[in-house]
Amino acid sequence: MIFRQLFDAESSTYTYLVGEEGTRQAVLIDPVLEQVERDLRLVDELGLVLTHVLDTHVHADHVTASGVLRERTHCTVVGGVGGAACANVQVRHGDSVRVGPLTFQVLATPGHTDDSVSYLLGDRVFTGDALLVRGNGRTDFQNGDAGQLYDSITRVLFALPDATRVYPAHDYKGHTVTSIGEETRHNPRLAHADREAFIHIMENLHLPQPKKIDIAVPANRACGRAASPPQGA
Amino acid sequence: MIFRQLFDAESSTYTYLVGEEGTRQAVLIDPVLEQVERDLRLVDELGLVLTHVLDTHVHADHVTASGVLRERTHCTVVGGVGGAACANVQVRHGDSVRVGPLTFQVLATPGHTDDSVSYLLGDRVFTGDALLVRGNGRTDFQNGDAGQLYDSITRVLFALPDATRVYPAHDYKGHTVTSIGEETRHNPRLAHADREAFIHIMENLHLPQPKKIDIAVPANRACGRAASPPQGA
Repeated sequence: MIFRQLFDAESSTYTYLVGEEGTRQAVLIDPVLEQVERDLRLVDELGLVLTHVLDTHVHADHVTASGVLRERTHCTVVGGVGGAACANVQVRHGDSVRVGPLTFQVLATPGHTDDSVSYLLGDRVFTGDALLVRGNGRTDFQNGDAGQLYDSITRVLFALPDATRVYPAHDYKGHTVTSIGEETRHNPRLAHADREAFIHIMENLHLPQPKKIDIAVPANRACGRAASPPQGA
Repeated sequence: MIFRQLFDAESSTYTYLVGEEGTRQAVLIDPVLEQVERDLRLVDELGLVLTHVLDTHVHADHVTASGVLRERTHCTVVGGVGGAACANVQVRHGDSVRVGPLTFQVLATPGHTDDSVSYLLGDRVFTGDALLVRGNGRTDFQNGDAGQLYDSITRVLFALPDATRVYPAHDYKGHTVTSIGEETRHNPRLAHADREAFIHIMENLHLPQPKKIDIAVPANRACGRAASPPQGA
């Protein structure tokens, strides 16, 4: 398997490229609009063909590249149920996305947003903004719900094996990866806090609105293309 | 083996944490002064003991954390011959640094600076500023030499197996890793340029001086501590 973690410094977003060496099919998880050329060049240089984009949720802090990538490559765009209507496939808990011999298992992990999903690929899980390195996504917009996020993390993600590598959609301190075991032990909002304490923490963060939210959310509901209907499948 | 890539956004520097699961010994490669607390916390949370710091060269764009880490943990600081006099060990081509069962092989890769070394650990090579993702370090200060860098990359690094994963000290476009095979095929300054063409490219970049060079180089020659003699061993 070919695996690459890519970073967008402007929005501190991680994008992941997963390629399969036999079929040469590739997936981009949470691609960023401004990085389309970088990402397509890498796909090409690695001799891969982009067949799927997986978004973990409708982002509020950057615009997805899914629509542009679909126009350029005819890939299939996948997102969670209740999220971007422009997606070719809306997935829910228990679904699988098969890319050649690779199988991404869909885990519903709502709470940051109501459409948030994580994608489990073997011993790696791509958690979007649900679980971050020593952190978690905020819960104060897009139908976010702190109690629901607590349940998603503790019942769904923390049920995975300790050694599962956690690849988040963001990091702001230079971390690139963590593991389920590490987060159960060291996540400051989860390791020693029960559900009520977690909700109290999340309801008292008083964070400023993301700068791009008024642009990013409607744009992302259209896969980053203002009036682009679904294409391909 | 425990492996973590860490990023300092201010200087776009990658630091690497390599830990050994049996002995719990750990190494930091190219740690950044401003990230000491982050890095020591991660070492601690992973149940590791920092025994070595490996610097790939005397950096011009950020200050190394090696001296502070040595004061805090009594680790051994390793650098290339001709580099920081404060290092406990100055290594040269063909040397090995053993950390429990892990063996880092030292490859002399001068040209960005005259003290630049790369560290080869199995199928990973930490190349400092010699070889970057689709790029290479500049050669216009600290006894840099474009012809020497061309030889270091093409004769030493490109002699490694194609599948060797290349972990650089910097990236400015969000790439995290590359491979020897990829760089031989796609590095824009090396894939299709001979030695003379490479020298011509490097001598005509006309880059501005790094902002911190006047502070960083003397500080790094003292392991980031203005008047700190070698301690421990």
